[in-house]
Amino acid sequence: MSGDAFSQLDRIVHEKGRMAIMSSLAATSVLSFKDLRDLLKMTDGNLSVHLRTLQEAGYLAVTKSFVDRKPLTTCTLTSAGRLAFEKYIEILDLIVRQHQREFQASQP
Amino acid sequence: MSGDAFSQLDRIVHEKGRMAIMSSLAATSVLSFKDLRDLLKMTDGNLSVHLRTLQEAGYLAVTKSFVDRKPLTTCTLTSAGRLAFEKYIEILDLIVRQHQREFQASQP
Repeated sequence: MSGDAFSQLDRIVHEKGRMAIMSSLAATSVLSFKDLRDLLKMTDGNLSVHLRTLQEAGYLAVTKSFVDRKPLTTCTLTSAGRLAFEKYIEILDLIVRQHQREFQASQP
Repeated sequence: MSGDAFSQLDRIVHEKGRMAIMSSLAATSVLSFKDLRDLLKMTDGNLSVHLRTLQEAGYLAVTKSFVDRKPLTTCTLTSAGRLAFEKYIEILDLIVRQHQREFQASQP
């Protein structure tokens, strides 16, 4: 495999923390800041930085509201974010399948 | 999926440039510095930095020799490097399959 598949991997999605955030939101659609923080065992600071990066890329929509007078921040993928994540997974799939064929071929 | 699969992704392998280097060496076994540079369209400096990181992690063996009085640098994965790359691909496979099931389930 040439380096082409790797160079196509979206740099925004490829960071491990952001992969985990996008993966969770692809599965569950809407999650609160606290849900994400607890699910992914991230610090508030670390999660905030990743969310901001995803927002700036147009991949994430963040909504702030009040429920029972308590502030609630919810996150969801935008259409562009969902598409970028699906494309990213497609490229990973190519890479994985290529190597699985090689690993099998190299078995004695 | 929780963040567990993502946190298991080897940080050394996960960087796109290093993924591409390890992928090429997993497929071809031995490549010269020039082969890798041309194949992956990297600068000498960028490739050198990645190779050093892989060497320091114990994933890469570099051999310097002379052929026809010209210096030749060749790279190959160590057993630890090959194992780390196979484990990395296994985790990617888990992530990909999980999401492909979700994408299929969300089709109308």
